[in-house]
Amino acid sequence: MYAITIAEPGGPEVLTWGEVPDEKPEPGEVLVEVAATAVNRADLMQRQGFYRPPPGASEYPGLEASGRIVEVGAGVSGWAVGDEVCALLAGGGYAERVRVPTGQLLPVPEGVDLISAAALPEVVCTVWSNVFMVAHLRKGENFLAHGGSSGIGTMAIQLAKVAGARILTTAGSAAKLERCRELGADVTIDYRDEDFVARVAEATDGAGVDVILDNMGAKYLDRNVDALAVNGRLVVIGLQGGTRGELDLNKLLMKRAAVAATSLRARPVAEKSAIVAAVREHVWPLVAAGRVVPIVDRVMPVAEAADAHRVLEESGHIGKVVLRVR
Amino acid sequence: MYAITIAEPGGPEVLTWGEVPDEKPEPGEVLVEVAATAVNRADLMQRQGFYRPPPGASEYPGLEASGRIVEVGAGVSGWAVGDEVCALLAGGGYAERVRVPTGQLLPVPEGVDLISAAALPEVVCTVWSNVFMVAHLRKGENFLAHGGSSGIGTMAIQLAKVAGARILTTAGSAAKLERCRELGADVTIDYRDEDFVARVAEATDGAGVDVILDNMGAKYLDRNVDALAVNGRLVVIGLQGGTRGELDLNKLLMKRAAVAATSLRARPVAEKSAIVAAVREHVWPLVAAGRVVPIVDRVMPVAEAADAHRVLEESGHIGKVVLRVR
Repeated sequence: MYAITIAEPGGPEVLTWGEVPDEKPEPGEVLVEVAATAVNRADLMQRQGFYRPPPGASEYPGLEASGRIVEVGAGVSGWAVGDEVCALLAGGGYAERVRVPTGQLLPVPEGVDLISAAALPEVVCTVWSNVFMVAHLRKGENFLAHGGSSGIGTMAIQLAKVAGARILTTAGSAAKLERCRELGADVTIDYRDEDFVARVAEATDGAGVDVILDNMGAKYLDRNVDALAVNGRLVVIGLQGGTRGELDLNKLLMKRAAVAATSLRARPVAEKSAIVAAVREHVWPLVAAGRVVPIVDRVMPVAEAADAHRVLEESGHIGKVVLRVR
Repeated sequence: MYAITIAEPGGPEVLTWGEVPDEKPEPGEVLVEVAATAVNRADLMQRQGFYRPPPGASEYPGLEASGRIVEVGAGVSGWAVGDEVCALLAGGGYAERVRVPTGQLLPVPEGVDLISAAALPEVVCTVWSNVFMVAHLRKGENFLAHGGSSGIGTMAIQLAKVAGARILTTAGSAAKLERCRELGADVTIDYRDEDFVARVAEATDGAGVDVILDNMGAKYLDRNVDALAVNGRLVVIGLQGGTRGELDLNKLLMKRAAVAATSLRARPVAEKSAIVAAVREHVWPLVAAGRVVPIVDRVMPVAEAADAHRVLEESGHIGKVVLRVR
């Protein structure tokens, strides 16, 4: 089969579409013929050599895919050859075929085409596990999503909207902020020339936000704590602004607040499966009903993965960049 | 009535037992004739001027008390004059009488004398709310309690033991560590000459602890994160080692861990009442059964509150220092 390999750590040019050994499903896995995969920021880090695949995972990049089951491993029930699926992966999505533990499979939702379905697993599982399973965002609460126009951000806005939260979001251009408003954001903040802590205070009568989904890490840590309400929950899922920041525990204590940080990729199969099961129960009906939709910035051929990485590096996109494999 | 007043912020000598205006219960409150109160570290901070009572709270120190109801405010049901109670207070326990919202009252548990009952409310509510309601310590998990010989520590060990956790604890003398073992600690660590991160790693085959209850704040922040297991929860309830510390969000993210910080005193009456109700349901039967006991270091007359504060400042005590009022 063919896959994108990383010749050596480096820029987008190290991504090469070439022949690699075929895959066979292990017990409890299926083999999926990939229709499409999608680009995640973790792929860029993996390409640069900063993010080793977890033990046992494919060496090829790609944390999600859509496609058709072409082979079923021993002990698999409930899935059959020919099923159209999408999947959360520990790696290997940038390939013609990928092995998937059945707990990480989802049916392609009604009303979503097979290519667009590749844009769903990572963002839906990330948002659901962090905003709802970790931070327990509730109806009527104020929710701040940093990077509202990213793949994660566009899904966070949609799911928080359905949950009945009031949504504040940051982004870095007028067009991005406009798209966030279309998706349901109530308050949009241009991080290039606005102070998000001040805007949050103004929009919440000084109370702060109940939940923050953050991709900036250290750079925003202290200001995120400032922006939190009493009983607030900050969930850090990205470290684009660095890893080590000063935490004022007195501020946190006075607010009875919490800082959590998580990563989806490193979770064991059992935890991923629990998240996927929750997503299938809670989110898939919303997608089937058209209340939550995949936001696809563009679809590019997988052989042009290098250009797709450049798109993410330049941050000109809104939503997901999908790579078509067949 | 008489109460301990703080003439001006300062050392223990500013505490004076003198006449103050009488109290009357507001609607939804009872007036308790205080039998005993107990010393908390927050009282020492309040005495030094670092911890203002929350709005509406008594100006006198004292975050817990035991005694008898002598007057019942409008709209109170379920409590009557003559009832022996203990109570979680926002302040005012160092006094002959104190007003208490009924949600913060607990009956004196079976088998506990009225004076010792004053040693229970703060530690039980603090441990239950943080270790179980915030950190969700579960059976079989590894639990690290810093300051295991303190009032909080001695209760944390007992409640974690009943919950079926494996208990690691730090303390600063052989006698204190011995008492922690008697109460149920499985692994004791002398923080004066042992590295708790190394001892935790050794005692957990490198896995780390699932829950940490911390009173040191900034000083231990980075090492506490090092000591956490995957999916670990650090709860900071004291800042004896400072407030601002460096948090390595990458470590936290790789462990999918969380740092929470809380304070009991500042919580609104409704939150305190929910904690007290949970304590009455889950902990009071354990106290009545003798499986969890108040650990009282000594009982001193309330007029000697200054000396009691010196005892806490010197940290020679094990468990609670109780002040007898009548």
